[in-house]
Amino acid sequence: MVNQPIRITGAEVTDLRVPTSDQMLGSDPFHKQPDYSSALLHLDTDAGLRGVSVVFTVGAGTDWICHGIKDLCQLVIGSDLAEFSTAPINLYRRLIDHHQLRWLHDGVFRMAAGAVINALFDLWAKSLNKPLWKLLVDLEPEFIADCIDYRNIGDALTRDEAIHLLRRKRTNVATRETAMLARGPKAYCTAGWLGLSDDEILATIQRLQQQGFDSFKLKVGRDSDTDVRRIKFMREAIGPECNLMVDANQFWGIDEAKRHIERYRPFGLKWIEEPIARDDVMGYAELANTFADADFGLACGEHAASPVIFKQLLKRGAIKFCQIDAVRVAGVNDVLAIILMAAKYNIPVCPHGGGIALCNMIQHYGMWDQIAVSGQGQTQLVEYIDFLQDAVAHPVQVRDGCYVAPTAPGWGLEFHADFVRLHRFPNGEVWKNRPPSNQGTAFEA
Amino acid sequence: MVNQPIRITGAEVTDLRVPTSDQMLGSDPFHKQPDYSSALLHLDTDAGLRGVSVVFTVGAGTDWICHGIKDLCQLVIGSDLAEFSTAPINLYRRLIDHHQLRWLHDGVFRMAAGAVINALFDLWAKSLNKPLWKLLVDLEPEFIADCIDYRNIGDALTRDEAIHLLRRKRTNVATRETAMLARGPKAYCTAGWLGLSDDEILATIQRLQQQGFDSFKLKVGRDSDTDVRRIKFMREAIGPECNLMVDANQFWGIDEAKRHIERYRPFGLKWIEEPIARDDVMGYAELANTFADADFGLACGEHAASPVIFKQLLKRGAIKFCQIDAVRVAGVNDVLAIILMAAKYNIPVCPHGGGIALCNMIQHYGMWDQIAVSGQGQTQLVEYIDFLQDAVAHPVQVRDGCYVAPTAPGWGLEFHADFVRLHRFPNGEVWKNRPPSNQGTAFEA
Repeated sequence: MVNQPIRITGAEVTDLRVPTSDQMLGSDPFHKQPDYSSALLHLDTDAGLRGVSVVFTVGAGTDWICHGIKDLCQLVIGSDLAEFSTAPINLYRRLIDHHQLRWLHDGVFRMAAGAVINALFDLWAKSLNKPLWKLLVDLEPEFIADCIDYRNIGDALTRDEAIHLLRRKRTNVATRETAMLARGPKAYCTAGWLGLSDDEILATIQRLQQQGFDSFKLKVGRDSDTDVRRIKFMREAIGPECNLMVDANQFWGIDEAKRHIERYRPFGLKWIEEPIARDDVMGYAELANTFADADFGLACGEHAASPVIFKQLLKRGAIKFCQIDAVRVAGVNDVLAIILMAAKYNIPVCPHGGGIALCNMIQHYGMWDQIAVSGQGQTQLVEYIDFLQDAVAHPVQVRDGCYVAPTAPGWGLEFHADFVRLHRFPNGEVWKNRPPSNQGTAFEA
Repeated sequence: MVNQPIRITGAEVTDLRVPTSDQMLGSDPFHKQPDYSSALLHLDTDAGLRGVSVVFTVGAGTDWICHGIKDLCQLVIGSDLAEFSTAPINLYRRLIDHHQLRWLHDGVFRMAAGAVINALFDLWAKSLNKPLWKLLVDLEPEFIADCIDYRNIGDALTRDEAIHLLRRKRTNVATRETAMLARGPKAYCTAGWLGLSDDEILATIQRLQQQGFDSFKLKVGRDSDTDVRRIKFMREAIGPECNLMVDANQFWGIDEAKRHIERYRPFGLKWIEEPIARDDVMGYAELANTFADADFGLACGEHAASPVIFKQLLKRGAIKFCQIDAVRVAGVNDVLAIILMAAKYNIPVCPHGGGIALCNMIQHYGMWDQIAVSGQGQTQLVEYIDFLQDAVAHPVQVRDGCYVAPTAPGWGLEFHADFVRLHRFPNGEVWKNRPPSNQGTAFEA
């Protein structure tokens, strides 16, 4: 498929940060003043094409991920794209199972590995002039299945099962693709950030409703009375027919979560997101039992650090919504595995969006899932965050509350040079001109 | 307790690496050629004392942790030791719940946070002229209990339970302390590294037996026949009375683990260590059920990235040996929580040792556990690795197969200046003189 050899000649890693904490957008009980940020990777080639990926973060610490990405890029500089694209599992294993680096575990290491893998998928898709979702849709089931590392998830998904899941939707792929080019994945948006006043929330809802949204999320994690009042306020503002979800961002312990959530029963919520710690699989199972008869289900995944955590949550039936993230795990390979596991256990994939350009990536997974894996969009919702899109040449778009199918090659993550220049940390103009307390490493607050 | 204010004036972070891969010591199925390494932190003060800690690693990636430690040290430079020592939970929360950095998750971030916390505990103990275990033993139960973050583990351990667990051994503490000063925690050692020949293993066993060891570990993770042959060989070499443990270093999936372990039943093994992925709590539970009637139990923890993972394994009864590590989680605060949870569920604490100076740290936890928490040493075993002790001024010592209680102040982690100078990466002489393939970032192999 790749005609001319494309050699990777270098890597550029940029620490991009935006002082969003000024506006309290993105705020939740833990992330009180997030500065939406990204570790931005460009892989240069001798063919002029650049492979791009981002790791979305919330400010301080972006430099840790940049450091890791730079280190890992040594593994791919000098190699040909075809070495990667003939069998993406090889690079995946070379990174994740690296005999010395695997000691670093998940978190920064897995995110940095994902950045490299995602940039190579970007490059590959660009070399074929296809958006990333289309690259995935066009791959044979066997090829997709061979991108997955089954070592730790084989009890939940085998290669044969992966192929079977993909084959069963294969006949309708063309029809689904046409349909989704006309109307992309259904989107939802957070209207109730924790730092926003009632009036600001109302204005946000109205703006979103004008764009056709009927699904809204609210942050909780204040005192129980305040949270319940805000839920009630949101429900009244959007009416009984709209979807309403709440997100606690892991703020509670299990018993605390039970007390809080018990009061949420009357409001017809769709899901309760991250009520407890990101790695508390048994805790999720316990909460799922406690609230088995409630309208809502549990949702999580944006902080689930590995496919093994997803495996357990899905296998145990602990979550009813699988919130994949594009940059928390090790790139496309891990996400393919998670989406296929979700399909096997009939759990809708509802990707986590955010800050700088994460939505630009997850829309491709929404497309692939709804065309080729689940093959439907009735139960799926893809998160949409409506700011910082002026950073990129191909902003995400919504129409009638649905994503507009992306058509730019690769992830479509081309950043405006001006934006990068201004927001480069710590020397970009945006940061140079800030008072000292906000420079440094954002240790304030 | 601290009389004169001690101010932290600076931090020095050193990337120390030793080319142990030359000898295949430390080798296992994943870590084929480990270069035992450490991110070494020195906190300088205006009192002359230095707070020291290490994060043990296996080569490449040590620089990632160094980068993180340097960043976090900004949080403590300029502060007084008393700000930390009056309530260590405050710094713990400031790091782990940092509103922007918590996005980085476990792994590198939690390990770097642990380095800072551990160096402050070192400084505190030195200011009192006590070894770290003695500092812990002398702290009131309420003070220890207040070092713990119960947010995500409150369903397994409450503050009241922590105090109760500590109080119940309080009356015998002085007697136990005297006993353990005479004879420290019982130790075990790996004799069967994966890269060693039978003859090398035999020689190792003989040497260890001369030091009084009766408990030995073997790495598995080759083909099943080879593993079984090596287990049989080890059992015959050490005789039927000695303890024999095997360690798979997470090499298998669940079903694969079952097939392998089934063949291990006849050899009177004490434990099977890390048969599957570090975060597969449900997988451990499943294996524990499958082998409920076997002689051996499951052991893990050296790669368990957070107290939440330990909580689930302990609460569910999935492991029979709790292998705390001194540098994988966020320092003393996390380890206290894990040891207390293990005590609550009656699971023996068998700390994980290794490479550069990890044993020097875990011996303090063995002492504290066996004096003040479990209050006994019959069921506990502390790992001992018998190399690279020439790096430090206070090497760990064993006598009659038991650790000799450490008496140097703090962790006793003072490194010889020559060792540091030689092994500093990448500019120390040891690394300068190596062929290019071993320089770089150890991406070879």
